[in-house]
Amino acid sequence: MITVKNIFENFQAEIKEEYFEDLISTGNFKLERIVSQGHSSPENFWYDQDKNEFVLLVSGSAELEFENESSIQLKPGDYLIIPPHKRHRVSKTDSSQKTVWIALHF
Amino acid sequence: MITVKNIFENFQAEIKEEYFEDLISTGNFKLERIVSQGHSSPENFWYDQDKNEFVLLVSGSAELEFENESSIQLKPGDYLIIPPHKRHRVSKTDSSQKTVWIALHF
Repeated sequence: MITVKNIFENFQAEIKEEYFEDLISTGNFKLERIVSQGHSSPENFWYDQDKNEFVLLVSGSAELEFENESSIQLKPGDYLIIPPHKRHRVSKTDSSQKTVWIALHF
Repeated sequence: MITVKNIFENFQAEIKEEYFEDLISTGNFKLERIVSQGHSSPENFWYDQDKNEFVLLVSGSAELEFENESSIQLKPGDYLIIPPHKRHRVSKTDSSQKTVWIALHF
């Protein structure tokens, strides 16, 4: 039997903490579901990752900031690849609705 | 500079052929964008794949059929993992709008 799940489901109306869930994890990559609602990275905090990250914003909206560059606004369907050690932070996510992301680390 | 693309964009109003695009391809996995509109697998045709396939229906709707099992209806946000050699076909996709999929073969 094949199990079908839904990336928008299983959430209470408001989520206090940003939510991270591994959907698939192998030695070669990790596929992750992220749900944000008004969350952002701490000020002056930068993600500095060893791996590539493919990011797809499925619903909601967000703003990504890259060090020494202007910010990028993301709407549903937008995707990008963040190379290793490209310092970035999530400067904003929609507070009025959930922002659902798919991230693939490889 | 980071390039942002959108999985819903760059399509004419009607697509004649089902559309497949590799977003990322490494020795370990392939991430693919698929756009269907009323397309389905040929009758009596079954996909019989060597690899696992993670499938996420991002927009639109579709029906998947697994050999000797009942069909599964898919709505936006639905995802599943199809194991290797699990014979399946796409029995239906929405003809009134585009169905956009993300598939990860691993």
